Order: sequence, then structure tokens, then C-alpha cells
Amino acid sequence: MIVDLEACNFQQQGLEMYRLISELYPICRSITGDGVRKTLHILQQLIPLEIHEVPTGTKVFDWTVPKEWNVREAYVKNSKGEKVIDFQASNLHLLNYSVPIHKTIALSELKEHLFTLPEHPDLIPYRTSYYKENWGFCLSHNALQKLEEDEYEVYIDSSLEDGHLTYGEYYLPGETDDEVLFSCHICHPSLCNDNLSGIALATFLVKHLSSQSRRYSYRFLFIPGTIGSITWLALNETKTDRIKHGLVISGVGDAGKMTYKKSRQGDAEIDRAVIHILKHKGEEYAIEEFSPYGYDERQYCSPGFNLPVGRLTRTPFGQYPQYHTSADNLDFVKPESLANSSMTYLAVIDVLENNRIYINTNPKCEPQLGKRGLYGTLGGEQDKKMSEMAMLWVLNLSDRTHSLLDIANRSGISFQVIKRSAIALLQAGLLRESSEVIRNDLRAGSAMSLIA
Amino acid sequence: MIVDLEACNFQQQGLEMYRLISELYPICRSITGDGVRKTLHILQQLIPLEIHEVPTGTKVFDWTVPKEWNVREAYVKNSKGEKVIDFQASNLHLLNYSVPIHKTIALSELKEHLFTLPEHPDLIPYRTSYYKENWGFCLSHNALQKLEEDEYEVYIDSSLEDGHLTYGEYYLPGETDDEVLFSCHICHPSLCNDNLSGIALATFLVKHLSSQSRRYSYRFLFIPGTIGSITWLALNETKTDRIKHGLVISGVGDAGKMTYKKSRQGDAEIDRAVIHILKHKGEEYAIEEFSPYGYDERQYCSPGFNLPVGRLTRTPFGQYPQYHTSADNLDFVKPESLANSSMTYLAVIDVLENNRIYINTNPKCEPQLGKRGLYGTLGGEQDKKMSEMAMLWVLNLSDRTHSLLDIANRSGISFQVIKRSAIALLQAGLLRESSEVIRNDLRAGSAMSLIA
Amino acid sequence: MIVDLEACNFQQQGLEMYRLISELYPICRSITGDGVRKTLHILQQLIPLEIHEVPTGTKVFDWTVPKEWNVREAYVKNSKGEKVIDFQASNLHLLNYSVPIHKTIALSELKEHLFTLPEHPDLIPYRTSYYKENWGFCLSHNALQKLEEDEYEVYIDSSLEDGHLTYGEYYLPGETDDEVLFSCHICHPSLCNDNLSGIALATFLVKHLSSQSRRYSYRFLFIPGTIGSITWLALNETKTDRIKHGLVISGVGDAGKMTYKKSRQGDAEIDRAVIHILKHKGEEYAIEEFSPYGYDERQYCSPGFNLPVGRLTRTPFGQYPQYHTSADNLDFVKPESLANSSMTYLAVIDVLENNRIYINTNPKCEPQLGKRGLYGTLGGEQDKKMSEMAMLWVLNLSDRTHSLLDIANRSGISFQVIKRSAIALLQAGLLRESSEVIRNDLRAGSAMSLIA
Repeated sequence: MIVDLEACNFQQQGLEMYRLISELYPICRSITGDGVRKTLHILQQLIPLEIHEVPTGTKVFDWTVPKEWNVREAYVKNSKGEKVIDFQASNLHLLNYSVPIHKTIALSELKEHLFTLPEHPDLIPYRTSYYKENWGFCLSHNALQKLEEDEYEVYIDSSLEDGHLTYGEYYLPGETDDEVLFSCHICHPSLCNDNLSGIALATFLVKHLSSQSRRYSYRFLFIPGTIGSITWLALNETKTDRIKHGLVISGVGDAGKMTYKKSRQGDAEIDRAVIHILKHKGEEYAIEEFSPYGYDERQYCSPGFNLPVGRLTRTPFGQYPQYHTSADNLDFVKPESLANSSMTYLAVIDVLENNRIYINTNPKCEPQLGKRGLYGTLGGEQDKKMSEMAMLWVLNLSDRTHSLLDIANRSGISFQVIKRSAIALLQAGLLRESSEVIRNDLRAGSAMSLIA
Repeated sequence: MIVDLEACNFQQQGLEMYRLISELYPICRSITGDGVRKTLHILQQLIPLEIHEVPTGTKVFDWTVPKEWNVREAYVKNSKGEKVIDFQASNLHLLNYSVPIHKTIALSELKEHLFTLPEHPDLIPYRTSYYKENWGFCLSHNALQKLEEDEYEVYIDSSLEDGHLTYGEYYLPGETDDEVLFSCHICHPSLCNDNLSGIALATFLVKHLSSQSRRYSYRFLFIPGTIGSITWLALNETKTDRIKHGLVISGVGDAGKMTYKKSRQGDAEIDRAVIHILKHKGEEYAIEEFSPYGYDERQYCSPGFNLPVGRLTRTPFGQYPQYHTSADNLDFVKPESLANSSMTYLAVIDVLENNRIYINTNPKCEPQLGKRGLYGTLGGEQDKKMSEMAMLWVLNLSDRTHSLLDIANRSGISFQVIKRSAIALLQAGLLRESSEVIRNDLRAGSAMSLIA
Repeated sequence: MIVDLEACNFQQQGLEMYRLISELYPICRSITGDGVRKTLHILQQLIPLEIHEVPTGTKVFDWTVPKEWNVREAYVKNSKGEKVIDFQASNLHLLNYSVPIHKTIALSELKEHLFTLPEHPDLIPYRTSYYKENWGFCLSHNALQKLEEDEYEVYIDSSLEDGHLTYGEYYLPGETDDEVLFSCHICHPSLCNDNLSGIALATFLVKHLSSQSRRYSYRFLFIPGTIGSITWLALNETKTDRIKHGLVISGVGDAGKMTYKKSRQGDAEIDRAVIHILKHKGEEYAIEEFSPYGYDERQYCSPGFNLPVGRLTRTPFGQYPQYHTSADNLDFVKPESLANSSMTYLAVIDVLENNRIYINTNPKCEPQLGKRGLYGTLGGEQDKKMSEMAMLWVLNLSDRTHSLLDIANRSGISFQVIKRSAIALLQAGLLRESSEVIRNDLRAGSAMSLIA
């Protein structure tokens, strides 16, 4: 498969991703419950997603699938009967996983259950209490300041009961069983960048890849953060060694520069592929070393799995003031940023799909390119010079030990140009395919053994 | 053993070390003789030092233990009978290892045996002539200028005869036979930083470590420079493979920044431990690559031994103008510098004592820290965040291939915090001890083989 | 062999090289033909060169030896019978490998066969058409501008016929069969730096090395670019594994700084030797990574050979405006630059000849240098200090794993000083020669295997 980046109408794709985000925005999601189901059903209208339901109480490694949480209504009323905080206005107002409550209390007691951001007094924070039973409301600090001494009716019509953890999965088979994993989280309520942008981009990738021939098989996970990836890994442990490359998708809709966080392996093919693409993209970018804190790469990169899974975002979580607040809204994500992110993801996939080891069939001295019409066959004068250099590099380094990506990196020429040159040389019989396996040193047998 | 840096009263320790330096300062030491014996006897009042006497003529590798040198009196008198140079005023005045002489000579002949520092006209230089028989006096250049044409009586009441080379040794056993070596030289006369500061710090370490439980055994050597370490190595050759880490202590009393000179191995655990501590200490420091010039690390790091022994000083020898002059006196060393140096040494020992490889007992996905009360159990909000990160790092990297020091270095978190987190995880059953050996690649079998 | 750089009269050598360049300058060379033969015959008067003739049509790997080209006369006359372009004035005027032609044509048709450099309107460019039959003239852009509408008589009295490719070779045997290869190209007409400077330097090296004892054997190739090295490699394939080090010589006469382009191996002994010499030479220099574009290193470093052959020039080809123009003339090359280049080449040879692994016979602690008179035996005070340090380094690192060049690089001391110290230690019995082989990791078995 060759991703034809020029043929792909990214502007159009950006707008479609933005529309999907708009549709999903109002839904109150959590790590379990009907909000997740509703979200996945909407996605099923676009892609043939499989929906899994895992019962409360299921043991998943060191964890247990929690009770399912649902909420119908939640508010705080003052003594005049005015709703001073209302879940209907914004689902962020409710502490996620709040237990049901209905009582009237003084302001002082109420305040113990209110969360604000004094440093951003206009914004509603997003807070959760998954593993410690509690109730609470989030509101802007300005709104808090306006609350007078009064008796307040607190009403949360929620349920926390045995049920299921729900997640979506889609497996797109390719020529081989080797898999590329894309994972996004679906557990945040009305938050656009930190949640919905990843869902939208994953959906776009499914649609795009479905229409292409594929060397790799692709697995897409739409899961609640942390408990979702732990659950999937626990239930699919035997499949994990098929995962040759992976990315956690999230935060791909803001206007910031792209940021890649390396896998724990640090020099896996996915790491080298993403870094190559970002280097040659002509835009600012940032590279972060692996750390065991973040999104679901924490689980994929735990030492017992050590999968080659990195994280490709725009501005990293926690590094923008809108993060986990009501300001991560439909104004914060941009169709053009979504388009730019999706183009980057496709370019990375293009590297993975086309990165092979070829063998120079004529390794003693250079072959005579001129007599085969290989000089100046590709594009204009500047392109010609570059493609000649690319051909010389591919021939010189196709010695069983360098993949095309290695050659691109050593030559400083983009993978796209190296790939095109390799194809021309292959067609001219100057290269043949190798059965050599691409070096992924740290990968092979690198998951921590449990045998002492 | 955990070194409790906060519990140790460093200010007090600095003053005690300074007092010891003051007591030892007037003694005329050399590579052999009664000055060394007197020095070691004073130390014996503080620590149970073993004193060794090695006879003149003993073959020690390519060297021979020299004759023993002692001096009672030495002066130069002018024709009026005035002592113009007097050993009693400063033992630096006498060329160390001067042979006995008594004659009257003209100024011109005398001048051939006088040493000064024209660039520092107030200072008396320190000079020796161990391996070439000679006599001479050292004086300030100003004093030299004042000497008039005259006949001078030169009197040196010294002896250079068969006797012994004397050194002190103290072995402090620990849980294992693996040793940490601390070596300081004791052969300089009235020089404070380049000699006495190292002796004082080594004495402090003996006292401190004696009262602690110890994983390692500790060996302290108080030896004359060069010939002393050569002698010890020759007489203790079979013990040297127990030395797993070592430091040459010297020049630890001046006000300059700390400077670490790496062992010949360059990446031994001692190198990584010292560099880690200096990095996290929050003060300026310098790192030097190994070179075969310097103090006794020259011998410990000779290719036939190649021991992992570095050198931890403040300003390196030769890089301060007071070096090897009468200005390296009691004003030049500072109690607070001695205290700071001793704290650094203890922090390094703390790393060595506690650096282990643990194994994550729950390597597939993260364990649920919350249900074990491991979130927020240690200290304030900032501490809490740091210790959570430290726990995640320890869990993520405890895969049999990373020691706690490796984890500290990769995470950028101080060893102290990593260590505390590891202990908490160990207590919670989330880690277990490993029998894996800490990587010291260059060490294992690295001493130069003598078999061709 | 020790190259005594001080004994060599470089100024004289520079003038002799310049005289040789002057003699060869007028000859019209190409990749085949009598110009090459005449050039080699002149060289034969200086050095006992062997001249090889390879017939047209000989298959050499993917290439075929081309027809032989010769030219007697060539001009363009205007309708007044004036020669407006004349091969006799400069052999650059003729497109190299032009086929014979004689006809009268209009300016417009003529212009399709004229080549100029508009950006350097005074200079005649150098152009070739070896593998596509064509005819043409090169001239200054100013001269082109002066051509008026007219009928022009075009006359090229050349021949392109079966014949031979001619090259020169000289093999200078040494103590071992291991070879050092020096290769220069001889296919350019009146171009001084890009051609003749390399020929002159190679000739000087033959003369110099002939009078020396040699550890290595030396092979000198005077060959047409590309097709010449391909031909030599094809006809001498079985000899290539004797080549342990090599340099392509070219562009060594301009006033620019020296530039080393690494071999494909990148860390071969020749790479380390040249870089060491350039670092310690005290002049500006540049290091380039290998790339598969350039002079004949392209062929020597093709993956089926992967020979440790770098390229040592002054300003690299294409990076000076005189390159491949009439300005690369006798004014552009300087006797002092040629002298400086030859000194650098000899210094590199000195490293190769003397780089050995020695073994410290006394590896446990330092040997006592003083009793052997090894202190201060070599030169002045500063030299003495340096040579003492060099002795300590040599002793410390002569542990079977470091060559003298490794020791020079780790210590930062020049190879010359390290070598002298090693000789002194060897004479004192403190070193012995080792049978260990110098590390050339990437070399051993690194040529691409043809067995799948």
C-alpha cells in the first residue's frame, strides 16, 4: 500500500472529523455507562465497530472492572428554588462517578463538595472519583464566589451498580497477521481535544485504511482510559505479540505543534518512523522520551508487555490551560489541525507499510543507471538531482543491514523520495526483496520474563 | 544501611575534622619516618587503626621500599650566627628527604640548594627528592632576595637509613566481603588541603560507618603517596578483586567546587553514583575523565588492576595557587567545606549501599496503587507527586535490567526519592529483590590478563 | 618506517609538484585516448609506472569499456574565416567525447551545441558526453554574446573507435602483503586542481615511499574516473581484500582548508588516522560523512567491496567557483598548498605504518620510570612534561585493547609524541609487541555477501 498523500483531501477530512466531534460533544461519557454506549453507536454508523461488554467484577490483572455508572439528572438549588448548578447546562458540572444523593445542606457543607479553578475563574474543571465513592459538583470560581449563605438542595440522580465496562474494537486484516495498534480513550464527557479528537482521527483512519491494500493488519481500540487498556490487555494477552507497532491517539485537534512521546523501547521502528516524518514535515515539532505517566501507553509499555507503542499528539495533556476544563470545547479544536494530524498519521503509516529491506543485485561498483534510463526519469531538475542521490544511497546501503527508513535517515532524504527511488530500482531489476527482518532490537523478547 | 543525611550533624563534623587537621598540621611527615608514625598514633586515638611497618628493601612490583628518613634539626646560619632559614619555623623549609650535611659555604654554593617560587614571592614551596639523594632548603623568594654575600653554616641533622615504610589500615566488615576502598595519602608535611583534609574525612567516615549496619565491607588506607599504594597492592594482591568500588580522598577542605575524576573504567558504578550525587546536589561541580596522572588512583587504575576507583576532591591538585606551598595552611581549609565534602561522600555511600535490582512482581499493566494506600502516603503535595512518579518509574523499569541508580538516572529523579519509593513498593509486595548483578560491564574480568 | 617530517623538504617538493602540473596542463585528456597515454609516459620518466591497456568492449561488472576517443583539431569559423572558437586555444572548448563533424550551420543551430556559464561569464566550462554520442563546444558566456547572426563552419576532427582504456599502476611491496591504496583520476583535460594536483601528489608519494622501509605494501592507481576504478576492481577483484586502508587523492592544490570524507565504514583505521592528523595539525579542516556521490570512493565503497577508502582533498569538488572551468588553472593551484597536502598525506602514512598494539610488560602499578632514566630524556621542559604524560598514557592503556592511535585519541596527545614515547618504553623493555589485531570492526567481513 502506498498512501497517496496528495490524493487525500485533507481539508474535507478535517471538516468531517470536526462534525463528528460536534455530534459527540454533548454526551456525558465516563469509564462505564450509557454515554460510552451512545458514543460507540454513533461511530458504528461510520465504521463497522465491534462493541464489547465486560461485566462488573471481572478480574483484569491487578484490577477489577468497576460498577457501571449512569446519571440522569443533577443540580444544586438555592432556597428560592433556582438551580445554581445544573448538570443539563454542562455535564462537567457533576463530579464524574458521583454517587446518588438528595438532601438539603448549608453552604459550608456544600463547599466541601465543590471544585473550582481559582487560577482560571471562568472555567469549570473536570474531576472524577472512580475508585473512591464520593459526590460533588464542579463550577467556575466566579460562580462559587456568588453563592450566598443559604440552604441548598443537592440532587444527584445517578446509579452506581453492577453492569458492564463497554469498549469498541475494530480489526482490519492485512496481508500478514502482524498488527499496527491504534488506541484512543472514550471516557471523558464534554471535552473536545482530550478525547473526541482522538476518536475522530481513529475513525478517519479506519475509513481510509479500509479502502487500501494493506501489508499490516490494523487494530483500533476505543476504550475507557487505564481500566480499558488494562481490560483489553488482560482479555487479549495472547494476541499482544502480534503488535509490531502502535500509537496512542489523543489531543490531535488543538493548534499546537505535534509532539511525539517515544515508546518505552525508545528506538523501535514506530519511534524512528514518527520521528522521521516529523523531521521532514517542515513544521515545528517536539520529541519526548518515554515516561511511565500519561495515557494508555502506560499499560502497553508496562514491563510485562513492553510493546512498541508511542503517543502522537499535538500539545501534550496538561500543557495547555484549557486541559480538563470547560474551555476544551468546540472552539479549541480546529478542522485544519485535525487535517494536519491525520496527514501526519497517514505519512507514518506509509513508512510502516513500505519500510522494507532490499538487496542490491549488483553490489560491486555502481550499476550504470544511464543505460537503464534511470537518470532524470522522475520530475523536474531539482527532483531529478534528489532522486539520483536517493538511488545512489539506496544502492549503496541495500546490503541486507539497512531498511529504507535507515537509508532515509542516514542520507537525510525523505522516506517518500527514498521509497520512490527504491521502487524505480526494483522495477529495473537493480534491487530485489529481502527476507531479512527489520531491526527492532529492543523489541525481540524484550517483554519482561516472569521466570526467575 | 540508610544514611540519614538529615540526622547527621555536619556542622559539628566539619569543626571536628578541622580540629584534627589543626592537631596534625605541625608534624613533619614524609613517605617514611616518625612523622607518619606520630600521625597514625593520633588517629588511633579516634579510630582503631592497624599500623603496618614494611622493611626498607622490600620489593613491591617494579619498586623497592626506600630507606627511612627522619630529621631532628635543620637550619642555615649566617656569619653572625643568625638562623636565616630554620626547620623549626616551618617544616616546609627543608627539602623533604634531604641527606645530613654540616658545612660552611658561600652564598653562591648555597643558592644551588635553595628553592623558591618567584611568581609567589611570599610563599615557601614544598619540594621532595625521594629517589635521588640531595639536600636543600625551600624559602620564600623575598627571603632569598635578602640573603647577602656571606659564609653560611648549613646544618641538616637527618638520617636516611634502613627502616620501614609505615601505613595505616582499617577494615570494617559488612554483610558481604565485597569492599569499598577509601584511600588517602599521609606523606606531606605541613600542608592542610593536600593531605590532612583527606585524612580527616577518612577518619570521619570510619567513625560514621562504624555505627551503621553495612551491606559492604569498607577498607580505609592511610598511606604515603605512590610508594604506599604500590606497597599495599603488592602485599595484598589477592584481596584486590573484592574491591567493587573505591575513591581516593584528598583536597576536600578548600572552598572550591567538588570535582570528580572518573575511574579508568569510566562507567563503573562508583562513577555513576558520584556523578548522580553531584548532579542532584544543587551546587556547581566538575567531572574529569580519567588520566594516568594524579594521586594513588594511578596505581589502583593501572592496567593490571583496573579497579573501579575514582577520585573525589574539591579543587583538583595543581589548580589552586596555594597548592604545594606554605599557603596550603589552616586558613585555606574551612570547616564548612569539610562538612560539605563529608556529606557528599556519605550520599555516595548511600547510593552504593542501597543500589539494588528489584523485580516488579506485577509487570503486566500497572498495579492499582490506590487500593494499597500508596498514593499520597509520603509527605506534602509536591513530594506526593514526585513520589508517585518515582513509584511509576520503579515499577516500569524493575524488569531485571535496571538498578535503582539506573532508574534514578533515566527518570531524572534523585536516588533518595527513588530509594524511598522502592522501599514502599517492596513493603507493599509489589517488588521483590533480585539476584541479578548490577552491570559493571567494564569491571568484570577487565584487569589486563598476563597470559598472552 | 618512520616518516621524518622534519627531514622532508616540503617547500622543494611543492615546487616540483607544481612543475609537473605545469608540464601536464596543456594535454587534452579524457577517459580514454592518447592524452592519457602521453600523461602516463611523462610520469614514467619520474616513477616506474606500469601502463595497462584494456580493450574497448571489455565487460567490467555492469559496465563496458567504451570506444577510445581522440581529437586532432576542432574549431568554429565565422563566414569571414575567423576561428571564433578554437580547440588549440583551450582544450576545454571542445565538449569532451565529441563525435567528428564538419558542416556549416546557422547561429541558431550552433547554439544548441554551445555550453556557457552565464553566472561566470568569463569562464569556459568543462563538459563531457561519454555515454551519449553528441558534439559541442564550450565557451565563455561573454564570447557567446559576441557571436553574430552568421553561417558558421563547425569542424571537429575527432575519432571515436574501438581501442583501449589506458591506466597506470604502481605497486610498491612492503614487509607484508597488506596494502594501502592511493587512487587518483587522470581523465580531465586542462584542469589543475581537479586532476593534476592529485596526479602530482601521488607521484611524489611514490618517490618518497620508494626510498623508505615499509611495513605495508602500497598500490597507486592513475585511472580515468568511474570507468577506471570499475575496470580496475573488475580485473583485480581477488586482490581487493588485501587493501587495508586507502585514500582517493584529488583537489590537493588549492588554498582552501583540508577536507576529509570518511569511508563508508566511517570508523575504519584510515578514518581515525586522517582525522587524528587533521585535528593535531593546527590548521582549519573539515570532516564529511560518507555519501555515495563523489570521486572513485563511490566504487571502492560500493557495498560489494566496502573498502576502507576515504577521500582527502582540500576544498571539495563543486564547492569552489573555479571547479570544472577554465579558472581551475595554473594560478589556482599553489606550490605551498601542494607541499602542505603532501605533508598531511605523509603524516597519515606515518600513523598507518606505526600504529600497533603494544603490551605493558609491567601492568601492575606504574613501573619506576626514573630509575630507567625515562624522565626528561626527550627534549625541553615542555616536551619533557608532554613525553612523561605520553609514557604514562601508553603504559596505562597498553592492555591488548588499545592501539597507539587509540591511546593518542584518548589522551589528546599527538600520535607523533605517543609513538616516540612507545619507542622509548619498548627500548626500556617496558612494552612488548602484541600479535593483537587492530580493531577495524566494520571492515571484517563487511563486504556484502552474495549468498542469500
